[in-house]
Amino acid sequence: MNEFELISRLIPSLPLNQSVIVGAGDDCAVLDEGAPGRLLLFKTDAVVEGIHFQPGTKPEQIGHKALARCLSDIAAMAGTPSAALVTLALPRDFKPDFVLGIYAGIRELAQRHGVALVGGETTTNPERTLLSVAMLGWVARGQMVLRSGAQAGDALFVTGELGGSLARKHLEFEPRLAEARWLAEHFAVHAMIDLSDGLAGDLRHLLQASRVGAELLASAIPISRAARRSAKAQTSSKPPLAAALSDGEDFELLFTVASRDAVPLLDAWKKGFPKLALSCIGKITSTEGLTIRDKQGCRPLTAHGYVHFT
Amino acid sequence: MNEFELISRLIPSLPLNQSVIVGAGDDCAVLDEGAPGRLLLFKTDAVVEGIHFQPGTKPEQIGHKALARCLSDIAAMAGTPSAALVTLALPRDFKPDFVLGIYAGIRELAQRHGVALVGGETTTNPERTLLSVAMLGWVARGQMVLRSGAQAGDALFVTGELGGSLARKHLEFEPRLAEARWLAEHFAVHAMIDLSDGLAGDLRHLLQASRVGAELLASAIPISRAARRSAKAQTSSKPPLAAALSDGEDFELLFTVASRDAVPLLDAWKKGFPKLALSCIGKITSTEGLTIRDKQGCRPLTAHGYVHFT
Repeated sequence: MNEFELISRLIPSLPLNQSVIVGAGDDCAVLDEGAPGRLLLFKTDAVVEGIHFQPGTKPEQIGHKALARCLSDIAAMAGTPSAALVTLALPRDFKPDFVLGIYAGIRELAQRHGVALVGGETTTNPERTLLSVAMLGWVARGQMVLRSGAQAGDALFVTGELGGSLARKHLEFEPRLAEARWLAEHFAVHAMIDLSDGLAGDLRHLLQASRVGAELLASAIPISRAARRSAKAQTSSKPPLAAALSDGEDFELLFTVASRDAVPLLDAWKKGFPKLALSCIGKITSTEGLTIRDKQGCRPLTAHGYVHFT
Repeated sequence: MNEFELISRLIPSLPLNQSVIVGAGDDCAVLDEGAPGRLLLFKTDAVVEGIHFQPGTKPEQIGHKALARCLSDIAAMAGTPSAALVTLALPRDFKPDFVLGIYAGIRELAQRHGVALVGGETTTNPERTLLSVAMLGWVARGQMVLRSGAQAGDALFVTGELGGSLARKHLEFEPRLAEARWLAEHFAVHAMIDLSDGLAGDLRHLLQASRVGAELLASAIPISRAARRSAKAQTSSKPPLAAALSDGEDFELLFTVASRDAVPLLDAWKKGFPKLALSCIGKITSTEGLTIRDKQGCRPLTAHGYVHFT
């Protein structure tokens, strides 16, 4: 039983209450705690030494990554982050400078995005460092974007370039908070998710939540230089397109808008975010399932995102 | 450098924003997210195998304890819990039934207190299970109780009985949510904290936050049967009073009210909570420091709560 199977078995039994707008299963939980214009976003995310970062990684990068992952989930709801708590589980022989470095990485990113650090705890995990961040944010009522709103005929977009993130980007990425808010303010974004498990895996999550399918256009998928470089240097056994589809940890935004909005969106995006690519990579279909079209035609996509829990 | 030294070095550098009413350093962070009558409470707490519970502990008890610790912190602010996220880090060879058992323990307690479980994640921690809960709650504006409000002359109270919790209670305790809300609704509670590090240790936290001292009355400290039993059976090297002062994990409420409220409080408590002891164990003094009075007179208390991070 992997992570996704276990979670899907657990979710139906979880208790809810009247404050819950969206429970488990989207990028963040959404709660109504009585603020007139706002819904709250609530999220946790953990990074573990040897899994999400390697021993020897700079502590500033560990802190950055841990907070940035949570911020990326807030972005996926078109939200604004507000406050975070940091749980730091450390071996007994930890160096204070290591902890201060982690906090320096967290603090630098938090300040840039107006996030208050309001506490947390340190505890012991004898064999390896584990860092979990709990995040509270908000979204204006009416501007929240879920995974579940994709409609047949929608154009499918992705920000940035995909694949090869583990070479460096996964430790340094900037969560797409401003971009996501801009999208929700200027266009009717039907569905959105951030890419943590890889394009193919996260697209499947979006499609399942929306009960639709998608057809990807292979030539339109933006492949990162890191993915091309590692294929060329044979440090990866994956062709660049496969890397872009399945490497994971891209932390870009994947979203859909009505097809009539596709061209206006691309035009406005170039003015708003001239340094960040935005690619229309396919369309949403009423037939469930995920296909990819290339020179040989259209076929089911068998490559899939990696499963965290292995 | 222990947990408290590290935290005290980190806290002054943490970024805040305008939503923060109380940042790091109290039982919960307090945030104003715009709800007219409410402030939000935000807290995380982790339990680690081999530290907070032993291998072989029933998974239902592990889940119960992890959630109950967070609920106890909400209680210490006189708050009401709303929603929780569960981060479960597990060895790769975990048994699904173990996870389902943990969730059963969490769910049972959550339902009893109206807490929604709105997600979280599972991840890998190869050597041991680690469970972190993030909790969101709220408190009516004007009813929040902090650690920092104790005043010289206040009477000092504690619920329940102390010491020997590791024999069983730490896995089964019921967070004092209803009791804390009742206290804040019926009396002017000046300061409150929940007992996780032991009476002596947590009282010191309350005194430091309030910049006051306290004099404990040794004969008034309620000693649990578990603490007396383990002293008698010599399973603990501590005399029962020392156990009550320093064992930790009692998860009772320690609070102060004006001395004129002490007798009315004790009378009303007996009617409201006839099954739970409430003891007046001393008084707050303007002189900083912690002393204890017994038959031999009054002397500084050298026993102190254990430090988590060792």
